[in-house]
Amino acid sequence: MVKTDIRVIYGDTDQMGVVYYGNYLRYFEAGRTEYLRAVGIRYRDVETQFQVFLPVVEAHVSYHKPARFDDLLSVETVLDRVGRASARFAYRLVREGMALASGHTLHACVDRAGSVTPLPAELAARLRTNSPE
Amino acid sequence: MVKTDIRVIYGDTDQMGVVYYGNYLRYFEAGRTEYLRAVGIRYRDVETQFQVFLPVVEAHVSYHKPARFDDLLSVETVLDRVGRASARFAYRLVREGMALASGHTLHACVDRAGSVTPLPAELAARLRTNSPE
Amino acid sequence: MVKTDIRVIYGDTDQMGVVYYGNYLRYFEAGRTEYLRAVGIRYRDVETQFQVFLPVVEAHVSYHKPARFDDLLSVETVLDRVGRASARFAYRLVREGMALASGHTLHACVDRAGSVTPLPAELAARLRTNSPE
Amino acid sequence: MVKTDIRVIYGDTDQMGVVYYGNYLRYFEAGRTEYLRAVGIRYRDVETQFQVFLPVVEAHVSYHKPARFDDLLSVETVLDRVGRASARFAYRLVREGMALASGHTLHACVDRAGSVTPLPAELAARLRTNSPE
Repeated sequence: MVKTDIRVIYGDTDQMGVVYYGNYLRYFEAGRTEYLRAVGIRYRDVETQFQVFLPVVEAHVSYHKPARFDDLLSVETVLDRVGRASARFAYRLVREGMALASGHTLHACVDRAGSVTPLPAELAARLRTNSPE
Repeated sequence: MVKTDIRVIYGDTDQMGVVYYGNYLRYFEAGRTEYLRAVGIRYRDVETQFQVFLPVVEAHVSYHKPARFDDLLSVETVLDRVGRASARFAYRLVREGMALASGHTLHACVDRAGSVTPLPAELAARLRTNSPE
Repeated sequence: MVKTDIRVIYGDTDQMGVVYYGNYLRYFEAGRTEYLRAVGIRYRDVETQFQVFLPVVEAHVSYHKPARFDDLLSVETVLDRVGRASARFAYRLVREGMALASGHTLHACVDRAGSVTPLPAELAARLRTNSPE
Repeated sequence: MVKTDIRVIYGDTDQMGVVYYGNYLRYFEAGRTEYLRAVGIRYRDVETQFQVFLPVVEAHVSYHKPARFDDLLSVETVLDRVGRASARFAYRLVREGMALASGHTLHACVDRAGSVTPLPAELAARLRTNSPE
């Protein structure tokens, strides 16, 4: 599991005084990128070196408690499945030990033309290493 | 079912050249607001007149094909369930007859203090009218 | 001058109950794209056909009155200067005849490598046509 | 001057492969909030304790070099003017010593009704303290 800190800015809130529901997917993305960095992958390199992309094919968020302006949040990210041409991440958004939201994203591996393609061996190996603690 | 047109702006895209995955929830929101308007409810009034809010407690998106800059999209919104203190909307995002994404949002009805409260009778009645065609 | 209608969504607002200040630049962008379309240019084509980009090098916004959720706004866009390798647009954001904000953006013409390059002749000619009314 | 670190996420970029021009105002906001925190003010408290808001009445950005996905940026924020009912912040967005953008925001002090009101004495005093180094 990898923790990523997020400070909620004003621009993330909406007029209900809480974080806008779509912005949780931005926080999940930040968590995902840091997860990859923790296992030695810069997402920047995924696209330039491996010539593949990992677009999201499914996203799910359960909202438990609202996040608010200036909250210091932590995104806890795990990789919960690696397929031949896919990977699935799960997330918990936490404030002072309390889960505010949870969810997952499912990613396909596609080439530059957008066709599904197997995960490059080196990339799959890195993802399959034991999750960092 | 209610259709809402959306023009994709540059700011909605990301460096993959397609719409960023979190922005689909913005499009769904636009569809939801127009759905409510079509059955005679301005969401603005939900908050000021009825003194309730309808925060999202669950959101799900399945991404089928990428939406791109300058696409003219249509969000097709239906209300697929009204509970005592909840409502669920389903969405299809369509470009020239092709579904690019689909999903749903589940909403709780809460009062100003954030406690779950039954949908006000008038609001529930409007939501339960036959869906506009 | 070209008018572009914008419906303010919930996701555009912040906890002050008004549109977040950064989102006005999204509205300006929508106005700019429609201005170009009105003079026969699809911005999509600028990048693919002419192989140039028009990145913003300067942006300015004056905020007069707040825009709010569900407002139906109109962006009034004019092209107020075309240089050898630049173009400048000016904007007014209007609600029911009242200007809520005004501003401008200055754009450089750059090639794929990011170097400043003269506006392609055909593009400049289109921009220099009398402004559409 | 107060430095605030920002990690660029994918959702901040656009299809030109760089940070979308409107998102720099999000970065400036993050810098401004941290500036206030450094002089002992939580913006959250400005609204709840002092019962005033500091909406932006003018924003300006000059874009020098593009910021890119995964860049670790630093927003350098200074308060360059405090008026009776206004305050002005200036910003530099820096990556490894190189300024990518600069700009300023001018803020009015308004009460809950939106009327301009003098900066509360305690708030003004804190702002007028020598800038933190």
